[in-house]
Amino acid sequence: MAKSKKFMTVDGNSAAAYTAYAFTEVAGIYPITPSSPMAEIADQWSSQGKKNLFGQPVRLVEMQSEGGAAAVVHGSLNAGALTTTFTASQGLLLMIPNMYKIAGELLPGVLHVTARAVASHALSIFGDHSDVMACRQTGFALLASNSVQEALDLAAVAHLSAIRGRVPFVHFFDGFRTSHEVQKIESIDYAEFDRLLDRDAVKAFRGRALSPNHPVLRGTAQNPDIFFQAREACNPFYDALPAVIEHYMDEIGKVTGRTYKPFQYYGAPDATRVIVAMGSVCETAEETVDYLNKKGEKVGLVKVHLYRPFSVERLRAAIPASVTKIAVLDRTKEPGAHGEPLYLDICASFASECNGPTIVGGRYGLGSKDTTPGQILAVFANLAAKAPKNGFTIGITDDVTHHSLPVVEEIDMTAAGTISCKFWGFGSDGTVGANKNSIKIIGDHTDKYAQAYFSYDSKKSGGVSVSDLRFGTNPIRSPYLIKKADFLSCQNASYVDKYDMLPDLKKDGTFLLNCPWDAAELDAHLPAAMKRFIADNGIRFYTIDAVRIAKELGLGGRINTIMQAAFFKLAKIIPLEEAVGYMKGANAKSYGKKGVEVVAMNDAAIDAGIDQLVAVTVPAVWKTSKDSPKAERKVPAFISGVADVMNAMEGDKLPVSAFTGREDGTFPQGTAQYEKRGTAVDVP
Amino acid sequence: MAKSKKFMTVDGNSAAAYTAYAFTEVAGIYPITPSSPMAEIADQWSSQGKKNLFGQPVRLVEMQSEGGAAAVVHGSLNAGALTTTFTASQGLLLMIPNMYKIAGELLPGVLHVTARAVASHALSIFGDHSDVMACRQTGFALLASNSVQEALDLAAVAHLSAIRGRVPFVHFFDGFRTSHEVQKIESIDYAEFDRLLDRDAVKAFRGRALSPNHPVLRGTAQNPDIFFQAREACNPFYDALPAVIEHYMDEIGKVTGRTYKPFQYYGAPDATRVIVAMGSVCETAEETVDYLNKKGEKVGLVKVHLYRPFSVERLRAAIPASVTKIAVLDRTKEPGAHGEPLYLDICASFASECNGPTIVGGRYGLGSKDTTPGQILAVFANLAAKAPKNGFTIGITDDVTHHSLPVVEEIDMTAAGTISCKFWGFGSDGTVGANKNSIKIIGDHTDKYAQAYFSYDSKKSGGVSVSDLRFGTNPIRSPYLIKKADFLSCQNASYVDKYDMLPDLKKDGTFLLNCPWDAAELDAHLPAAMKRFIADNGIRFYTIDAVRIAKELGLGGRINTIMQAAFFKLAKIIPLEEAVGYMKGANAKSYGKKGVEVVAMNDAAIDAGIDQLVAVTVPAVWKTSKDSPKAERKVPAFISGVADVMNAMEGDKLPVSAFTGREDGTFPQGTAQYEKRGTAVDVP
Repeated sequence: MAKSKKFMTVDGNSAAAYTAYAFTEVAGIYPITPSSPMAEIADQWSSQGKKNLFGQPVRLVEMQSEGGAAAVVHGSLNAGALTTTFTASQGLLLMIPNMYKIAGELLPGVLHVTARAVASHALSIFGDHSDVMACRQTGFALLASNSVQEALDLAAVAHLSAIRGRVPFVHFFDGFRTSHEVQKIESIDYAEFDRLLDRDAVKAFRGRALSPNHPVLRGTAQNPDIFFQAREACNPFYDALPAVIEHYMDEIGKVTGRTYKPFQYYGAPDATRVIVAMGSVCETAEETVDYLNKKGEKVGLVKVHLYRPFSVERLRAAIPASVTKIAVLDRTKEPGAHGEPLYLDICASFASECNGPTIVGGRYGLGSKDTTPGQILAVFANLAAKAPKNGFTIGITDDVTHHSLPVVEEIDMTAAGTISCKFWGFGSDGTVGANKNSIKIIGDHTDKYAQAYFSYDSKKSGGVSVSDLRFGTNPIRSPYLIKKADFLSCQNASYVDKYDMLPDLKKDGTFLLNCPWDAAELDAHLPAAMKRFIADNGIRFYTIDAVRIAKELGLGGRINTIMQAAFFKLAKIIPLEEAVGYMKGANAKSYGKKGVEVVAMNDAAIDAGIDQLVAVTVPAVWKTSKDSPKAERKVPAFISGVADVMNAMEGDKLPVSAFTGREDGTFPQGTAQYEKRGTAVDVP
Repeated sequence: MAKSKKFMTVDGNSAAAYTAYAFTEVAGIYPITPSSPMAEIADQWSSQGKKNLFGQPVRLVEMQSEGGAAAVVHGSLNAGALTTTFTASQGLLLMIPNMYKIAGELLPGVLHVTARAVASHALSIFGDHSDVMACRQTGFALLASNSVQEALDLAAVAHLSAIRGRVPFVHFFDGFRTSHEVQKIESIDYAEFDRLLDRDAVKAFRGRALSPNHPVLRGTAQNPDIFFQAREACNPFYDALPAVIEHYMDEIGKVTGRTYKPFQYYGAPDATRVIVAMGSVCETAEETVDYLNKKGEKVGLVKVHLYRPFSVERLRAAIPASVTKIAVLDRTKEPGAHGEPLYLDICASFASECNGPTIVGGRYGLGSKDTTPGQILAVFANLAAKAPKNGFTIGITDDVTHHSLPVVEEIDMTAAGTISCKFWGFGSDGTVGANKNSIKIIGDHTDKYAQAYFSYDSKKSGGVSVSDLRFGTNPIRSPYLIKKADFLSCQNASYVDKYDMLPDLKKDGTFLLNCPWDAAELDAHLPAAMKRFIADNGIRFYTIDAVRIAKELGLGGRINTIMQAAFFKLAKIIPLEEAVGYMKGANAKSYGKKGVEVVAMNDAAIDAGIDQLVAVTVPAVWKTSKDSPKAERKVPAFISGVADVMNAMEGDKLPVSAFTGREDGTFPQGTAQYEKRGTAVDVP
């Protein structure tokens, strides 16, 4: 790792906000998940007086809705201020009318979008591209970042190109998967941005601002005599834009050593089968391409960074001449279309071509459905078929209209030297905070790379939180949940009956259970399936009674420090003494003001988390544990067939037919009565 | 003409409103040009107590914006009422978020849309498909009507199919060109609609309504575990919908004798070149196909009625196997896309096909740019080229990015027996009203077909209005302005210097000029070009001093009745005595309440319009009239290069380069000072 590089351990929102702040004079804002942190960060920095490239703090204007925020962007740009907003989903939809105007008037605004599903049969706050795709006709340039690092790098390309090219940008990255994934990434100094900024273009932009000193008429109404001709007058700007973007991609490449292209090829130079995709799935596809090519196959991936303007010439140049089959992955669904948007564009790029490649398209990852290497293997397997299926889906089982590809076994494709850790926490128990803390310790103090992703259920406090942490000596791609963990921690003893956690643990992996149980009690309380898994897979099994320890230390219910210490001891990512030092350092910093006693109490929790770990000797008889007969539940079919499955955190396994008769999103009422939470550590 | 047929002479808005009213229980409304008349008609009928198919007047709910109107549609449908709205352009854009919900919840709402441009570099209230295309991803079905007749017929298909198919519809037709074109069309009795209505489906729809009697949960939030599967559950409804639509197209066909198909082929069964298009341009293309096939060429047209769900199978079945080249016409521009939406869909329909047809796409008719048979000839000529141009434009001269096809000479393709009449009126002089009256007289009292289209400039009162009327023994297609008129009337003498009107007149056509001039004065006042045109083309030239006559009769400035009578005398569409009878009958009806004197005054105007016509003997020397030297105008380049051209009503001739440097829509201020209107009949 080069010494000169400046790292930061941040999520995608922070990464994009870091860059956006530099180029922004005014931000019209309105909060919407998962984009809100970008505006919050800008707001915080502004109030702290942090300066943009123009020597001033960003001026933020919060409006009544995203419609108003878009109007601020439009008006402020017309007043000569470089203006930005941050949004997603329905928020972005409300901006559409203004987007046509902003693009039509060739104003260099930038919208940073955490791409999110649009509510249809149900709302989803999670990631897909249906919002961004609803804007593809507005005249905005659409630039996709596929990772936290790219969210920082390409945000700069968006701003720089908008200013020089006079076309506004939507810079987008996957909601939650990228916006909320924490990664250790490299920063770019504002001085570099400053050097790249086209100050002449900024001056020209300001010269075009509406001003009483040189009044002009803008936003006229045009009749049939001239509207069409005037509408075509913008063509040269769109024709020129891809080269402008390439220029800034190259410049950012020179600064960072990272190569970016509008369409970026990855894989075998003589590939016959390629995937075309955009967004975080590209990282998963890269891993899969590496895996298959290592096995002697010839596959590749075209990463679409620049979706609009869509340069057929550049797409064609990016695809090896050897390619005979293409699978296009779209993260959106447009019911009634016979193919999703990226698929349509790729088809048209090869229109009327004799001996052109076979092109099929498929949907993936809607509403943050996890997209795994196994699913990408299924796509490549489909392409290998004589007549590849078109209009397929991956990641689900469609037993109704049969679009889904057959499921392929998951193979662990994370880079060598990567340690994967999974934590089942209890909403508000501090697990997520402690994990963010751990990843920061490792990211900031060591030369290791780190990645973290946090899944919450909708119940928030009191619900389940699952943290997925990866640490490695190489940059970590893998933008999907951990299915092969080296370490798995369960922070709540009641979960052992409710959730089937262990299948995500590797053979010989480590399982830490927070519980008050001794060996006999473990034997009594653990379900047979768990016991068999532990015994069959050589799991190193540890317990800790963190609830008792926390009470004894006067920490009340806060078990997070104890569990964090136990994690550092067991997961062995960095030497234990170092970890303890960093953790205690953090205690001093966090609690110093509250007095030495509080610091000491938390330091004691760290020591206890290490010392009071119990290594469980796994009885050989666990291999033959018998399942107890399932208590029969007299419940409606919806409860047993859908609600119970979802409550067991196994909703991913429900096939499409589970929603037959509920296609319009209608659910029965009064289902909570069948739900047993029972997750309190004490009897309430 | 079958006796049983019931005709009406109405515009597209009235036609669609007639059908929509039958199937609508609640209408959420907000007015926007050019859709407003649909809601106004429904409102009027409702207040008059007119009943829908459910035995009740429509309940109209006017909201604060189209966003609210869409929310009414969503909410009211969920309450079990069949709900409709009427909108266009930005209004439709504001409905997009709710459209996803309405479609996602499988609610049978119908939006009748007068397709209109979306404001970009400038606002346009005129017709194109950019608004509708911005909704193609929402899950709504998109059904296009290409004429006033179809607006009535296919509106029924939309409502009937939505109810049975549980998918909401956008039923659209071209703003102004269809929404405001008056045509004599056939009506369908509400009893037929009633017979076709699927009452079981209506009952099932009501059964799904939200009700405290059987509470359910709808509009939930779903997490990544189930959102994707649940989103795919709607597929069967979309798969089934084309057949539902075909069924109702067939049923409407049985009632009317008019055939409709999702993709409807017109032309040579062994065509090699076809156009694929939707909207009113299809009527123009039909005429052109007829013209070329009569000349021995082999061409055809695929009229797209059902754009979403897009049925590749049906599209392919509609295209003759002999076709080798396809031109797709899109009436929208998506800057940055490498092809417009219909083009992309057609390309994907032939993806990866060896020996498939060559497919090119082009834009036409943005912001109501008139699309003429000559432009369609240019498209077919392009297809005949060895390497047809892709991404072309027609109807404009693009001398900047050179996308436009070469201009082809206009050929009169109106059906034999059609009489074309053009009226240059003065905004608020009553010309448009009188023409509407004339067309109603002919439509209602004779077996002739009639068509009328009215162009206003944005100045409304005091601006220019041009009326284009066609009358014929066969149904009239020709959805474009008249370029070869049999009769041309100029209602304002000052126009002779301002507008080059006569080139739209046929050889041997009739020119009526309202002016106070005698022969010598005509010779002095008429510009040389006009005199040459009249003399060279054997124009039958008449004058009438309608201003004087009106004053003498006590009608003040209202010259319309006088001019209307003169028109009936000269244009000879129906026997003069009949026309006089109908006009005087109308007078009795309109003015009867005001007393016999007022009726008599208007009757006298009719007589005067006939009797006081002056047939001008055209002097042979007019053939050699010399242009007077043009007075030099010291004006800015924008005035002479753009504003003057537009003010001369010749803005259509401006090439794209006229807007170079103004690509963002910026115009200079203070241009009105250079404009001379001088259209008052008396010195003010």
